[in-house]
Amino acid sequence: MSVTLHRGKDCSFVSTPDKIEPRNAEPRVVRPGGKQTIFFSHPPKITGRMAVVGDKEGKGPMGKYFQKVISFDETRKKTFEKAEIDMLLAAIEGAIERGGLTRRDIDLLLAGDLLNQITSSGYAAREVDVPYLGVYSACSTMSECLALASALIDAGHISHAVCATVSHFATAERQYRYPLEYGNQRPPYAQWTVTAAGATVLSREGDGPRITAATLGKVVDYGQNDQNNMGAAMAPAAADSLAALFDDTGTAPKDYDLIVTGDLGKLGSDILRELMRERGYDLGQRYTDCGTLVYDGTQKCYQGGSGAGCSASVVNSFVLDGVASGRYNRVAYFATGALMSPQSCFQGETIPCISHGVIIER
Amino acid sequence: MSVTLHRGKDCSFVSTPDKIEPRNAEPRVVRPGGKQTIFFSHPPKITGRMAVVGDKEGKGPMGKYFQKVISFDETRKKTFEKAEIDMLLAAIEGAIERGGLTRRDIDLLLAGDLLNQITSSGYAAREVDVPYLGVYSACSTMSECLALASALIDAGHISHAVCATVSHFATAERQYRYPLEYGNQRPPYAQWTVTAAGATVLSREGDGPRITAATLGKVVDYGQNDQNNMGAAMAPAAADSLAALFDDTGTAPKDYDLIVTGDLGKLGSDILRELMRERGYDLGQRYTDCGTLVYDGTQKCYQGGSGAGCSASVVNSFVLDGVASGRYNRVAYFATGALMSPQSCFQGETIPCISHGVIIER
Repeated sequence: MSVTLHRGKDCSFVSTPDKIEPRNAEPRVVRPGGKQTIFFSHPPKITGRMAVVGDKEGKGPMGKYFQKVISFDETRKKTFEKAEIDMLLAAIEGAIERGGLTRRDIDLLLAGDLLNQITSSGYAAREVDVPYLGVYSACSTMSECLALASALIDAGHISHAVCATVSHFATAERQYRYPLEYGNQRPPYAQWTVTAAGATVLSREGDGPRITAATLGKVVDYGQNDQNNMGAAMAPAAADSLAALFDDTGTAPKDYDLIVTGDLGKLGSDILRELMRERGYDLGQRYTDCGTLVYDGTQKCYQGGSGAGCSASVVNSFVLDGVASGRYNRVAYFATGALMSPQSCFQGETIPCISHGVIIER
Repeated sequence: MSVTLHRGKDCSFVSTPDKIEPRNAEPRVVRPGGKQTIFFSHPPKITGRMAVVGDKEGKGPMGKYFQKVISFDETRKKTFEKAEIDMLLAAIEGAIERGGLTRRDIDLLLAGDLLNQITSSGYAAREVDVPYLGVYSACSTMSECLALASALIDAGHISHAVCATVSHFATAERQYRYPLEYGNQRPPYAQWTVTAAGATVLSREGDGPRITAATLGKVVDYGQNDQNNMGAAMAPAAADSLAALFDDTGTAPKDYDLIVTGDLGKLGSDILRELMRERGYDLGQRYTDCGTLVYDGTQKCYQGGSGAGCSASVVNSFVLDGVASGRYNRVAYFATGALMSPQSCFQGETIPCISHGVIIER
């Protein structure tokens, strides 16, 4: 699979515009014993979105889709953490503005990030000054936020919500691996944390792609314990949640124009394809992974991108552009998260992973 | 205020059994411009609950209310972190069992904790094997979980959810301050992280106290930057959310039998009383704080308890016992969380805080 698989002429997805119909009589209730998918009877609309990325990401294959690329000079703050907060704020404010709204219209901000105590989100929320719910599921944070916000809007509890997340290469390296100054070497199966923020405005009324269902993931752990090999750790969680979606909805890969995972990277994507094949599903050309899309081979990012901002930025630009243009009528977006900490791995634990998904329809 | 204020004969709350009625015509929508409260038209019931605490907490004033006290020997695991995970699991499984349910009945687990990447929750969720949403708002995690689960159950998306959180003195000290081996001294305005887990089962049908509304907090930062003085940092957030509740519902402190905050401790509680007085509300005898209840003066915990498990354990034992017995007909439970990390404080940031609240009625 080429890292430019889903760019321009390489794409040839089968269009299936018919709605997803649940198989059971009471479709909105997640059932014990395996049912993990919630269906929205009043699907929220995506009315605003914004991806803000760093210099390196702007030079990659997705560069032309991102709404804003921040140059190295612009991101130079007193600390990398402040740069990360600013990037998240830019995405949140950009998404609200692009949706034709103001902060005063927003009922709720749902956000999370990779830093300890999700401080980027907490400090950004301080500036936004709307009710805030902190969410954490590592690189699956964006899809967890979208699922929760969709449920709250579907129920009529709120009218407009912003879902947002961010990651930053330098803050993530320092926290999860080594400070950049150490100049440590990376194994060839590693991924590169994307410096990017993504934000999505969901609204009860308005025009835009709809979130029609959400699949809430279980924690899956196949015993992987190498913090550099996130793709291998997370692929089984993506397989588990995708299988739950297909099972709950009675659909198959062919019913989606695009199945996009968060940041499995090249290796993790290959493992996911294999795991799904074992379950009887051929993901085929419909499937791609945001981590494989964001950098090209010359950027020395080995298996591709990772980080909460990876799928958040790619989905809020390239993927939703495709939905808006009619290229994709139905997208399954399954971000994937690894729930370990450096400490838990040092203590001998393996890496528990999760994947939450949402179905986006034109 | 004595730390035993709300024990036995010291209590004299005014009972107001009439339901909370929202002031506006469309009460279920959080409105821009200040409305932060969601009302549940099909309030979920608390059908199971469990508090599991450590030795020290078991010897405190709340000891007789906690459903399970784990002795030091029982908690001795290879690492403090494993002990914390086991304690959270015991609370989750105990709450499910006490609710007459099994794991297979549970549609969703919502959990979070204080450790980096909320690993206690992630690893516990791996064992429970139900769909899992990670949540983080520091010591306000329990009320955020209850608010989200209530909204999902109210909407009919799920039937049974478990909300859970945990904290552990030794893991929190090591992560936020110093490893215990350093034997560092604590300033007199400090609190003591409670070693405790609390879990609540919410159900769409069944008998038990109901969660009738939730107030989603905004991030509030009054410029406090001393990590040892959490009460002072968090009190303004509690004041902001309580004022939002009173404003959104047209109620006043006298309309609640008990107003209980998470873990402001003695100093923070005094500050909250003062801040509310400035806003025209006298909290009076109805108000207490879980942090002031959990230890007595001989236990050398200065301002009292703190940590996500503090209010989670006290509410799931003492407070809900009081609701079950008819002592309290309406409780406002507002946990409070400080959203900084040690790193953000080292970088010169102040401490942003938040308080999410739920209304529990008999």
